[in-house]
Amino acid sequence: MFSVTVRDHMMIAHSLRGEVFGPAQRLHGATYGVDATFRRATLDADGIVIDIGVAAEALRAVLGELGYRNLDDEPALAGMNTTTETLARVVADRLADALGEAARDLDGLLVTLHESHVAWASYERAL
Amino acid sequence: MFSVTVRDHMMIAHSLRGEVFGPAQRLHGATYGVDATFRRATLDADGIVIDIGVAAEALRAVLGELGYRNLDDEPALAGMNTTTETLARVVADRLADALGEAARDLDGLLVTLHESHVAWASYERAL
Amino acid sequence: MFSVTVRDHMMIAHSLRGEVFGPAQRLHGATYGVDATFRRATLDADGIVIDIGVAAEALRAVLGELGYRNLDDEPALAGMNTTTETLARVVADRLADALGEAARDLDGLLVTLHESHVAWASYERAL
Amino acid sequence: MFSVTVRDHMMIAHSLRGEVFGPAQRLHGATYGVDATFRRATLDADGIVIDIGVAAEALRAVLGELGYRNLDDEPALAGMNTTTETLARVVADRLADALGEAARDLDGLLVTLHESHVAWASYERAL
Amino acid sequence: MFSVTVRDHMMIAHSLRGEVFGPAQRLHGATYGVDATFRRATLDADGIVIDIGVAAEALRAVLGELGYRNLDDEPALAGMNTTTETLARVVADRLADALGEAARDLDGLLVTLHESHVAWASYERAL
Amino acid sequence: MFSVTVRDHMMIAHSLRGEVFGPAQRLHGATYGVDATFRRATLDADGIVIDIGVAAEALRAVLGELGYRNLDDEPALAGMNTTTETLARVVADRLADALGEAARDLDGLLVTLHESHVAWASYERAL
Repeated sequence: MFSVTVRDHMMIAHSLRGEVFGPAQRLHGATYGVDATFRRATLDADGIVIDIGVAAEALRAVLGELGYRNLDDEPALAGMNTTTETLARVVADRLADALGEAARDLDGLLVTLHESHVAWASYERAL
Repeated sequence: MFSVTVRDHMMIAHSLRGEVFGPAQRLHGATYGVDATFRRATLDADGIVIDIGVAAEALRAVLGELGYRNLDDEPALAGMNTTTETLARVVADRLADALGEAARDLDGLLVTLHESHVAWASYERAL
Repeated sequence: MFSVTVRDHMMIAHSLRGEVFGPAQRLHGATYGVDATFRRATLDADGIVIDIGVAAEALRAVLGELGYRNLDDEPALAGMNTTTETLARVVADRLADALGEAARDLDGLLVTLHESHVAWASYERAL
Repeated sequence: MFSVTVRDHMMIAHSLRGEVFGPAQRLHGATYGVDATFRRATLDADGIVIDIGVAAEALRAVLGELGYRNLDDEPALAGMNTTTETLARVVADRLADALGEAARDLDGLLVTLHESHVAWASYERAL
Repeated sequence: MFSVTVRDHMMIAHSLRGEVFGPAQRLHGATYGVDATFRRATLDADGIVIDIGVAAEALRAVLGELGYRNLDDEPALAGMNTTTETLARVVADRLADALGEAARDLDGLLVTLHESHVAWASYERAL
Repeated sequence: MFSVTVRDHMMIAHSLRGEVFGPAQRLHGATYGVDATFRRATLDADGIVIDIGVAAEALRAVLGELGYRNLDDEPALAGMNTTTETLARVVADRLADALGEAARDLDGLLVTLHESHVAWASYERAL
């Protein structure tokens, strides 16, 4: 099995709902360092999993729709508790959509959101 | 599949038994950077795998029982060759015990011990 | 010259005023990885620049007053454009105050705020 | 499941064939940070997956045959598009050969090549 | 004193002249992780050292003229031994030129080129 | 001003004397990630500060005399409180001695010991 990973980031504001979140129930924010890993059993005719440029641009586009925003006000995320885990899934699902045909031969996608140097969360799905 | 990882560290002395270890048979020590990854197929009602605070405190407690010690003198580790691999399992098993009920809905646990910037070891188990 | 550095982080929401900031004029947020470096020409009787525990607790306390907040609403920061550079100075000045007598023999303090894996800012001052 | 990882690097020149590579079709180069991960279901009598020294030397030997070279001129790679993914497989396969008997009880091998701080590729195989 | 740093990278081929370089006398290559640090005694009216976007674009442009090339064939570098130290100065000098008026109020510039996870070089100059 | 840095590590056991050290008064240990930075105002005829190979070997030799040992039992360190700061000076001074003539044209040396991912200490001296 092969994989390729590209890294980018986004900076957002949000608040979390639920007593478990303690002070994170207040409006605060995060820089998410985002790693998107694309998996594929065999390489294509060019010898790659996916063009790194295509992958990086797709990730940039997905993060561009979330970054520099207060996620509490985003209609597309209404009713969603935007935890790191949940946002990892949002990014993965949007990335799968953004790639469209380019994801045809890929087997899986793993998205990791680093919320700090001591905590991160991932979501992995098939493609 | 979702996962959440928290990072902490511990500083210990120990020696290793066996010719394969060369100079590491002498009493020396290590800082282990420790990553604990919790896996779960679906998120809970709060939208999380596990509360990061709970996970970090449990890891802190487990490392607190090992850190700032000479592991060669720890009764609980008597007869054990405290290699990085073995310590990864010790940390994982103690962490699973420490979480108790909080680990109920988790599917797996991966513990990685970084012994330097060029070497690390992991142990993965079900929960 | 000796120095000791401790690392911690804070997660905040804010917006920036000025066209130069483009989309960062919108309410968004950041995780700031914070490194506080203490400089001293000679070591004390214990052979240290500053006790790492004392330094880490002081930094934790300073970041605790800023983190998990919307800095746009903080009275103490009213009228301030909370850029990474400016926040580095806020953290450094508050840290100097928090250390009080413990900073007596220190010569300088450098605070670096990492806003992402590709951008950071620092402020250095005498003590 | 246990694993041990060792990190090293190599510096090479090469060019890539195919329009998808854009400017990377020109002769250029890369530092590959290389992580080799060895997996094993149970530990050996010494309590390890593989001796870290043995693993590091084997990796060093494999990288020594590729590094400080223009891969476009390497007979052993003739006709191969030396993408990061492909090189990850070359390193993994050569490493498996180099370990020989030492790999007997290992279950798998994962090789990751970091081509920059924002992109990396992996190849995983059984042993 | 304040500073702001932005990070980017470039991938190049080159060879080094001189017996001291051993195997690096052969045509090989490198990924240089490049950190550009801008220093300034006081902040501007917006509360910044330099706009991070402007700094990142200037660095991107400078690296774009060097990257994906064989530096041995670059007329502008003819006769130059393109060591990491020398390239750090080339990047710094070109960056100072590229910033032009935008560098007017800056006091200094530090450029660090990371050639691997275990070696890097810097050049610092006034502005 | 130019500089070159090489990174290596050592693993030691020790204990610290003084109530300020709390649990670190017990025998424990550390992996020190060690960065040695060599400064020089102008480059030599080869275009370098110091040969990276020479620098790396000298650092390796110095760390080899300290690593895999219990520093409490080292005659050369008798009576010394082997704090991270103090060890940074020991490494720097020994490195200056080890380089001997090779350090003739260097202007300064900075040694940083990383004791964990959240704490490190440095010592800087002239050459």
